[in-house]
Amino acid sequence: MKITMAHGSGGRATSQLITGIFEKNFNNDILSRMEDSAVVAGSSRLAVTTDSFVVNPLFFPGGDIGKLSVCGTVNDLLMSGACPKYLTCGFILEEGADSEELEKIAASMAQTAREAGVTIVAGDTKVIEGSGGIYINTAGVGFVPEGVQISASLCEEGDAVLVSGNLGDHHAAILSARMEITNSIVSDCAPLGEMVRSMQEAGVRIKAMRDVTRGGLATVLHEFAAASDCCVELTQSCLPVSDQVKGFCGLLGLDPLYMGNEGKMTAVVAGEDAELALSCMQKSKYGEAAAIIGHISGKERGKVLLTTPLGGIRVITELIGEGLPRIC
Amino acid sequence: MKITMAHGSGGRATSQLITGIFEKNFNNDILSRMEDSAVVAGSSRLAVTTDSFVVNPLFFPGGDIGKLSVCGTVNDLLMSGACPKYLTCGFILEEGADSEELEKIAASMAQTAREAGVTIVAGDTKVIEGSGGIYINTAGVGFVPEGVQISASLCEEGDAVLVSGNLGDHHAAILSARMEITNSIVSDCAPLGEMVRSMQEAGVRIKAMRDVTRGGLATVLHEFAAASDCCVELTQSCLPVSDQVKGFCGLLGLDPLYMGNEGKMTAVVAGEDAELALSCMQKSKYGEAAAIIGHISGKERGKVLLTTPLGGIRVITELIGEGLPRIC
Repeated sequence: MKITMAHGSGGRATSQLITGIFEKNFNNDILSRMEDSAVVAGSSRLAVTTDSFVVNPLFFPGGDIGKLSVCGTVNDLLMSGACPKYLTCGFILEEGADSEELEKIAASMAQTAREAGVTIVAGDTKVIEGSGGIYINTAGVGFVPEGVQISASLCEEGDAVLVSGNLGDHHAAILSARMEITNSIVSDCAPLGEMVRSMQEAGVRIKAMRDVTRGGLATVLHEFAAASDCCVELTQSCLPVSDQVKGFCGLLGLDPLYMGNEGKMTAVVAGEDAELALSCMQKSKYGEAAAIIGHISGKERGKVLLTTPLGGIRVITELIGEGLPRIC
Repeated sequence: MKITMAHGSGGRATSQLITGIFEKNFNNDILSRMEDSAVVAGSSRLAVTTDSFVVNPLFFPGGDIGKLSVCGTVNDLLMSGACPKYLTCGFILEEGADSEELEKIAASMAQTAREAGVTIVAGDTKVIEGSGGIYINTAGVGFVPEGVQISASLCEEGDAVLVSGNLGDHHAAILSARMEITNSIVSDCAPLGEMVRSMQEAGVRIKAMRDVTRGGLATVLHEFAAASDCCVELTQSCLPVSDQVKGFCGLLGLDPLYMGNEGKMTAVVAGEDAELALSCMQKSKYGEAAAIIGHISGKERGKVLLTTPLGGIRVITELIGEGLPRIC
């Protein structure tokens, strides 16, 4: 079935779409109450975030826009030290969107939400003119435990910098799909709750965390360097990149440091906790290629420096020019 | 300036857009931290909701998509008895969107948020192909005070039904703008916090509340009748409709009972509190035309009945067929 403007009218077609696709897949007591707002248990400190997803194509090796829309928002909550609890989702559908694709996307969201331990508590659907596009906004609410303080501004000299796995996978997968290049690159799109909990439970002193998305690792580390007025020193040989992505980047002249992932995080932790953090990451479901990639120093404040295999020092600038739009 | 795909790349153009338009207008400490999630004070019971806004045209008499996107979500929180606290906003911009229009919309959101007492704590911007459209998702978090229980399922025989003002204004304003009909009809788009607080502070026993939006009053009252397994009896002569909207509806064969508002609510309150609720509404900024329009009975459970001026009884069905899409 093709989506028509009638599905966005608020009338019977809208109800049928909601009942037939969203309620069926997201089925839970809170959502089924169908009130204007969901009333849910709270906590004294909340993390709140939002992200819209416009990825093209909707389905790609390793995921789809639905999985992405849950992972992206769940990971943003986790990076503030919060335990993700509730998601809202707003669908904007273009006329002509395929309801079977929409159902696959909803099922994928539901499955990812279950894995991530979050409940979809509120939703909304609108239809616009267009040519079959599907866009999703998710907003998330998480609980921040007492005492947890994680911020880009808390990095200190001596801290270690880790990344949870290979860089550039999602970006390279989307680009391959869009350029119709056949290869074995798969998006790393994944929720990182297990990994973060593992570090928290082991007592790792985490200073800052970010998921590595649009703009890549370089952009995140620049934010850390600026917010903490410190220097991030990286060792190039420690940066994990898969052979396939390395080859793909070589071919197209891309730098994995600027490429987006959707299931990778970077963490700055107390220097003495580096090995503990590494072992937590590596034992986690999506962290086997995790690595300690550098440390925080006072060398050149506000900058990110990379030591090359030949011993040279390269200043890593922010993303100059433009990345690839619609990768998330 | 026209929005280009580069504004959605996550690179420098995106930052400039965020800093130049959103940060400037939404300026607050929480948002300015620019972390992945906002960490804010919480409460033991939360209301959570989301809504996307795709109204066409973007600017209309009485409001614009920005004002609408704040009012819609704030009102949904209020209707659950919550005090609205935080909003997130996700912009999806089509290529070619006008940055000056976007700035006007952001300024309008900021002003409405101030009036409604909510803080915009997180945001996101994406760009898609298209022809200049602007779409906004807002999600909202509110605090629900202990003891407050408001739900469509709590209506009881003897309760009174009120509406806070004239029906159909927003719908008629959008339709007029779209059909390029010149008249004096203005959208009623407004946040209803003052009105709800006034009733709560006066001790009105509120059973159920809903803002009257897509689908109109008939749709909301049907939800009450179904959820509470009761009969909603209305008196046609008590339904407030402005002369202009009455004339407009007569001309086009529309029924104000099915038309959307964006600054009106209906409330079911204990019968003895009807006059108190009415006086609270009428004293509020957006409630001067409020009226007691009917009561809850056990007559025909699950139905909405309307007594006509001639004493006949009309069964008010749900919205059959389709309303006007893209009114919100």
